[in-house]
Amino acid sequence: MKYRIEKDTMGEVQVPEERYWAAQTQRSFNNFKIGTEKMPPELIKAFAKLKRALAKVNNDLGKLDKDKANAIISACDEIIEGKLSGEFPLAIWQTGSGTQTNMNLNEVIANRATEIMGGNFREKRLVHPNDHVNMGQSSNDTFPTAMHIVAIEELADKLIPSLEKLLEVFKKKEADFEKIVKIGRTHLQDATPLTLGQEFSGYRAMFEHSLSHIKSSMESLRELAIGGTAVGTGINAHPELGKRVSDELSKLTGKKFISSPNKFHSLTSHDAIVFTSGALKGLAANLFKIVNDIRWLASGPRCGLGEINIPENEPGSSIMPGKVNPTQAEAVTMVVAQVFGNDTAIAFGASQGNFELNVFKPMIIFNFLQSIRLLTDAMDSFRVHCAEGITPNLEKIDYNLHNSLMLVTALNPYIGYENAAKVAKTAHKDRSSLKEAAVKLGLLTAEEFDKYVVPEEMVHPNR
Amino acid sequence: MKYRIEKDTMGEVQVPEERYWAAQTQRSFNNFKIGTEKMPPELIKAFAKLKRALAKVNNDLGKLDKDKANAIISACDEIIEGKLSGEFPLAIWQTGSGTQTNMNLNEVIANRATEIMGGNFREKRLVHPNDHVNMGQSSNDTFPTAMHIVAIEELADKLIPSLEKLLEVFKKKEADFEKIVKIGRTHLQDATPLTLGQEFSGYRAMFEHSLSHIKSSMESLRELAIGGTAVGTGINAHPELGKRVSDELSKLTGKKFISSPNKFHSLTSHDAIVFTSGALKGLAANLFKIVNDIRWLASGPRCGLGEINIPENEPGSSIMPGKVNPTQAEAVTMVVAQVFGNDTAIAFGASQGNFELNVFKPMIIFNFLQSIRLLTDAMDSFRVHCAEGITPNLEKIDYNLHNSLMLVTALNPYIGYENAAKVAKTAHKDRSSLKEAAVKLGLLTAEEFDKYVVPEEMVHPNR
Amino acid sequence: MKYRIEKDTMGEVQVPEERYWAAQTQRSFNNFKIGTEKMPPELIKAFAKLKRALAKVNNDLGKLDKDKANAIISACDEIIEGKLSGEFPLAIWQTGSGTQTNMNLNEVIANRATEIMGGNFREKRLVHPNDHVNMGQSSNDTFPTAMHIVAIEELADKLIPSLEKLLEVFKKKEADFEKIVKIGRTHLQDATPLTLGQEFSGYRAMFEHSLSHIKSSMESLRELAIGGTAVGTGINAHPELGKRVSDELSKLTGKKFISSPNKFHSLTSHDAIVFTSGALKGLAANLFKIVNDIRWLASGPRCGLGEINIPENEPGSSIMPGKVNPTQAEAVTMVVAQVFGNDTAIAFGASQGNFELNVFKPMIIFNFLQSIRLLTDAMDSFRVHCAEGITPNLEKIDYNLHNSLMLVTALNPYIGYENAAKVAKTAHKDRSSLKEAAVKLGLLTAEEFDKYVVPEEMVHPNR
Amino acid sequence: MKYRIEKDTMGEVQVPEERYWAAQTQRSFNNFKIGTEKMPPELIKAFAKLKRALAKVNNDLGKLDKDKANAIISACDEIIEGKLSGEFPLAIWQTGSGTQTNMNLNEVIANRATEIMGGNFREKRLVHPNDHVNMGQSSNDTFPTAMHIVAIEELADKLIPSLEKLLEVFKKKEADFEKIVKIGRTHLQDATPLTLGQEFSGYRAMFEHSLSHIKSSMESLRELAIGGTAVGTGINAHPELGKRVSDELSKLTGKKFISSPNKFHSLTSHDAIVFTSGALKGLAANLFKIVNDIRWLASGPRCGLGEINIPENEPGSSIMPGKVNPTQAEAVTMVVAQVFGNDTAIAFGASQGNFELNVFKPMIIFNFLQSIRLLTDAMDSFRVHCAEGITPNLEKIDYNLHNSLMLVTALNPYIGYENAAKVAKTAHKDRSSLKEAAVKLGLLTAEEFDKYVVPEEMVHPNR
Repeated sequence: MKYRIEKDTMGEVQVPEERYWAAQTQRSFNNFKIGTEKMPPELIKAFAKLKRALAKVNNDLGKLDKDKANAIISACDEIIEGKLSGEFPLAIWQTGSGTQTNMNLNEVIANRATEIMGGNFREKRLVHPNDHVNMGQSSNDTFPTAMHIVAIEELADKLIPSLEKLLEVFKKKEADFEKIVKIGRTHLQDATPLTLGQEFSGYRAMFEHSLSHIKSSMESLRELAIGGTAVGTGINAHPELGKRVSDELSKLTGKKFISSPNKFHSLTSHDAIVFTSGALKGLAANLFKIVNDIRWLASGPRCGLGEINIPENEPGSSIMPGKVNPTQAEAVTMVVAQVFGNDTAIAFGASQGNFELNVFKPMIIFNFLQSIRLLTDAMDSFRVHCAEGITPNLEKIDYNLHNSLMLVTALNPYIGYENAAKVAKTAHKDRSSLKEAAVKLGLLTAEEFDKYVVPEEMVHPNR
Repeated sequence: MKYRIEKDTMGEVQVPEERYWAAQTQRSFNNFKIGTEKMPPELIKAFAKLKRALAKVNNDLGKLDKDKANAIISACDEIIEGKLSGEFPLAIWQTGSGTQTNMNLNEVIANRATEIMGGNFREKRLVHPNDHVNMGQSSNDTFPTAMHIVAIEELADKLIPSLEKLLEVFKKKEADFEKIVKIGRTHLQDATPLTLGQEFSGYRAMFEHSLSHIKSSMESLRELAIGGTAVGTGINAHPELGKRVSDELSKLTGKKFISSPNKFHSLTSHDAIVFTSGALKGLAANLFKIVNDIRWLASGPRCGLGEINIPENEPGSSIMPGKVNPTQAEAVTMVVAQVFGNDTAIAFGASQGNFELNVFKPMIIFNFLQSIRLLTDAMDSFRVHCAEGITPNLEKIDYNLHNSLMLVTALNPYIGYENAAKVAKTAHKDRSSLKEAAVKLGLLTAEEFDKYVVPEEMVHPNR
Repeated sequence: MKYRIEKDTMGEVQVPEERYWAAQTQRSFNNFKIGTEKMPPELIKAFAKLKRALAKVNNDLGKLDKDKANAIISACDEIIEGKLSGEFPLAIWQTGSGTQTNMNLNEVIANRATEIMGGNFREKRLVHPNDHVNMGQSSNDTFPTAMHIVAIEELADKLIPSLEKLLEVFKKKEADFEKIVKIGRTHLQDATPLTLGQEFSGYRAMFEHSLSHIKSSMESLRELAIGGTAVGTGINAHPELGKRVSDELSKLTGKKFISSPNKFHSLTSHDAIVFTSGALKGLAANLFKIVNDIRWLASGPRCGLGEINIPENEPGSSIMPGKVNPTQAEAVTMVVAQVFGNDTAIAFGASQGNFELNVFKPMIIFNFLQSIRLLTDAMDSFRVHCAEGITPNLEKIDYNLHNSLMLVTALNPYIGYENAAKVAKTAHKDRSSLKEAAVKLGLLTAEEFDKYVVPEEMVHPNR
Repeated sequence: MKYRIEKDTMGEVQVPEERYWAAQTQRSFNNFKIGTEKMPPELIKAFAKLKRALAKVNNDLGKLDKDKANAIISACDEIIEGKLSGEFPLAIWQTGSGTQTNMNLNEVIANRATEIMGGNFREKRLVHPNDHVNMGQSSNDTFPTAMHIVAIEELADKLIPSLEKLLEVFKKKEADFEKIVKIGRTHLQDATPLTLGQEFSGYRAMFEHSLSHIKSSMESLRELAIGGTAVGTGINAHPELGKRVSDELSKLTGKKFISSPNKFHSLTSHDAIVFTSGALKGLAANLFKIVNDIRWLASGPRCGLGEINIPENEPGSSIMPGKVNPTQAEAVTMVVAQVFGNDTAIAFGASQGNFELNVFKPMIIFNFLQSIRLLTDAMDSFRVHCAEGITPNLEKIDYNLHNSLMLVTALNPYIGYENAAKVAKTAHKDRSSLKEAAVKLGLLTAEEFDKYVVPEEMVHPNR
């Protein structure tokens, strides 16, 4: 590979000839050969939107001349469009402030902007990474600002639509299954009946609550650190910078952002992400429960519960011919485990700020974005390849329903809890039906039993 | 000890003669000798409020006669007042639905109500635990209802006031320290200055955000499962039961409660608690950061940072005479670790529901209440024994401020980032002052330096 | 209450007249009103054993006179016997070094020893808490030493015997169920058969591996910090103190202890506890899997898998008469969640040491002992109230076995995987038997099928 | 792209023309578009080693003919050498048994082996993925076998050498810093002195303990599931398969492997990985403590502790010129947070097995390998770019040492703890030296003080 020499305040460094990045990016690349996890492209694009907004505002404020501002804006647009995707090679595991990624942006934008202005950055930069691209900024306010921008975008544009679509499927199933009465189960044991529609309404309500929690948790993510610069005081920034950039970003992204009312908080606390990660964990816990129910209800085909059917997507076993497994549910449950782990890592990092800065930022946003992406994709995959295709196995549902001893609960108001228990226990011991047991014990006539024990009447309250 | 014989649907069991509890409580006591953790008294009291409200509503609905209802209400009042505190001996580690604690309440209330009605429960009950006290209910709806009642009460009456009081102390410090300019620190390294008041404003803003997150997370906790009975369908309950009991509880507690719109969700998902636990974890992470800063700022007395003083509450060492340690901060940080652990346990449990019920309820509420209690007490203790007594060490603050190399940042707009870096590096290498270095490098005159580098002017944005 | 005045190096403090404890205990009691969790009695007793060994060794080394040493030893014996159990009122949430509990021990022992020597500690101490009871010691070495003593004792005397007893029960079941061939299940779906004994052999092997992991993890817990004093250098301690005290403790407890080869490590790292907590977490994960299998295999009674029966210990429902639930399994799974949470808290605390000390010690040992206690008790309870009473439901086992489509796997070597898959799919679609499908497809005769597909021959490898 | 049609037991599917993979790989690729995490190459290579060993053993056992076996072996060798790296496109988030990755291996090997045998797999396979490559196997035993192979390889060949090299650096520093006496710190407060070498010996001992824990935890990872096939019974496998393949793998890899004595355990429990992950978490906690100490000791340059210097690797700030940050330490601490999160995810997954299989395998091994890789790389990076370059700042060390009040501890044996405390408190209050205070209080002469208080004599025990 051919190299050119770049220098920064610490001296010279070799950089691949064809790259836009410069000395500081290269130093980080050389010094942090850790793992395979790179800064996510979504974050880089959000960062470019921020740099774009800053160039515009700095020009509006009379700090940055028009030509440079326009060149920076054009360079940012290229990054946003994904044109420079090979220029951001840095690892998550770098400095905890994300400074090196901020400088990666600054260097690439400065050099590309130099080209756009007709210059040759290999000879002489026309735009300076620090003085122009980073004008009125610090890594300490830009990185957390980019974190919040990307968080809002990924939640609003990916996770929430995916969750809403899944919710719609469950609403449809709820309606479709409205009349199907089936056995309920508590403690894995037979319980009183409900409709399959009611069972799915519970899932639907879980999704609705998770959606509501996630939405309300996003409010604090709309607050942006920008304007705080190095330690939160705003040194070297214009007093209106934070508000103007937030407004510009709202316009640019179509999402609501505001300038954080306390920049010291914004640089050093990631409570907004911890809180939202908790909301995502709540969704994950709900998902685990739902897909676990679904694979159990679909278990069998002959020796399980078998009350519903799920789509057969692929051969399930390399040794057992004809086996079909609930693989979509399995992928979801593995994603849930990952989201739980990510939440642990995020909160740990969030607790470890010192004084004016928290230096666990790249790790925090990496895990947070992974949680969003995995939940989004897993919900989409599960929706298309499993949820939409769920059908009831009416024969098995009906068999289980009428075989259950817990229909006895309907007798409580007529013969009391203790006598009802006697009926159930007698039927269990005799392997008889409840009706046979009730009559045998002389507690009810067969006619009374048939009148009182009507599964279809056991799925709602009674006046 | 003297015993009497009690029986339930499974047969006879010996119960201590003097106790109000009966067969099912005793069975659980005998069968679950696990650990030392008992059902928290706050939960028992919340449960008694629920049973009280139910007796009233069942009477209003014409299901339960006046005498029995009144006796049940009186018995519940005694529990609420703490008079029967020895009657709830059951472990957290019991059935996961909390059925045994529901029956413990039902038995104690039935027997005490029998006495109140003039009867002798050892001979003949006048009130039945299942048919009367548990009328129109199941453990599966009462236990999660009690969980939400106690959660709202403990948050609203304990944690939030404690957090608000701590917030007030930090607001006062923020005002007191408004004019004290000090060195900032990022990455543990010297950074640009800020005021001590600004530093404390960051802490204040952290508390404000946590408070706001906790309050918004509480909305779902106001939804009550009651009315869902065994599996969420409301079998054996009156259709108005849920709403009427929720209204009655709002009146009784002065807190807003509503009947959950989907009871299947309420029995099987604990997303509201997972979400709120996430908000508590956010507070915990913030607390860790704040008290850690404070103990670091108070470190020394001679070989640490030493910029603030904290109260000396007790001798710090059994071997080093005269040592004083930041013990209140240490207690807080240990509490934070516990809250993190509790959150892990809660989410795990919340993910493990099956079909119509989640059977990790006692563990979930135990951890949740422990987190609330520990955070509340730790904030109170830290406030009284540490935060209120924080004072600045002006001499050390001033020395550090004027010694710092990062004042150089003020020169960026005048000589550019790269020249400014040269000044800082020269001063560091020569162990000289920044001014000396700047002049030596010929970048500025001494007069210019004094005009541009004014720490007091570095703590706010610049037009 | 009556009080007396005590003083320490910080001044005077009121102490309840009748208590042995003195000023520093009282200060901690006053200053740390946090939570309900007290220092566990097991830890206090282990600490008393340590103080006893130290008195003896200090006397042997000629540092402490015979009379004082004997009085201290007698006072320690009283604590070990549980006679002074009301004298240790301090919270877990105190100073993170446990200094206040060390001083609690020092004060109680000094005052009680004064009495034993015929003095009146309220007037004049004959034994000094720091100079005599704490001779050659610091909280910083005694507290972690007590942590390791109690950890080894609780593991060796409680958890391991409990685990071994449970293992024996599973071995017995394995033998009892040796000949019972049943359907296997993977992905919750029907799979090839195995014996119920083989299924239980898997559980047995899980317990054996956990036991082996726990035992090997204990090796580092045998290393004691004692002799390191304030920062690990051993200042003010005799150079032989660590070894002599470790030997004395080995004699006193019957457990092997050695003097830690590096005291700096011992004061500041709790890697031994993190590692052992990981082993406990492995046991917990295994337990979850095992008891979850058992409750699923016992699910029903009519609409679940129902292949085994578990003991009926108590009525399962307050509303559904005759319901029996797998409550012992539920208690175990809740304990598992707690152990997972505790492990999170422990590792967090262990990572947060600074310089010569880790100040999360009380929280770490509290969680560690809780994990041990809960696992021990839960295994005992599950063994007695569930595992021992497990019986097979032969009728259901047999029905499922012969109904399963996965017996088709036995045909792979004869007709190949793809043809075998056709057989299974045909049978599934036609709701026919495998034999019918195989014959219909012309792949085998009925006689060949019966020769190749013998469930009893499918539970072991084939030459 | 051009496609060819492949089929499996479920029907036809389009596969990219140039790919070796076939129908089942493609189905998984189509059905699991979740996240960006692919099966790690290390795992694929370990899997190929296993398939290679199986082909050899199946031939030795007379099950597989020589030509096919040789072709399979050659195809595996190509995978091991990395030649077919584009052929393994599947996500972690697939079926929880890893069946689809097992089939990916089977398909690629079968097709490549067909080519090696001179055939054209697009027309007619000469080697069958299931019947030949997967002979005597199931995903359920091969996938966990591959997990253990790769775990042992990565630990033995990467993490352990990296840890040992870091340990060597710390041993060297320990020796280099042997004579440098410095202030100790406990609770962040000044404490009695120790040598910088002693401080580093604590770090060295932490690494040694972690190394020992990891090594002992690896024993169970040497047990291989192979031979258990579908559910652990070994159906369709030769009874000697497990042992022979384990021996072959030992030969092939140079690592010790044995056939697991209980295959039911091996398919369903991942206790060996949970246990080892706990050991890695212990290392992570130790690393956090060590690098945190180092960045604190290096804090400043002027307003921190400043007792050591660490290498300056890159400009630390985009706004503060001349700032240098402890970035290597930051990367390590972020890695630690990730390892903690991974451990949470692993244990959760490990607890969720059902009956004969645990279906969280891809997630578990993904996190486990990430923890190993990140710890390995972070230790290497920290060693090269930070640890090796640590130097003492003797001036600051000396200043702090002689300024500390905790030297007073040396007086305990002469004037007692209480008088020593008076000296320290007086010096603190008067801002005087300890000697001045001691003389002022009349407790010692200046000569006595100088004789008793010798920092160099305070760093070891005293007879």
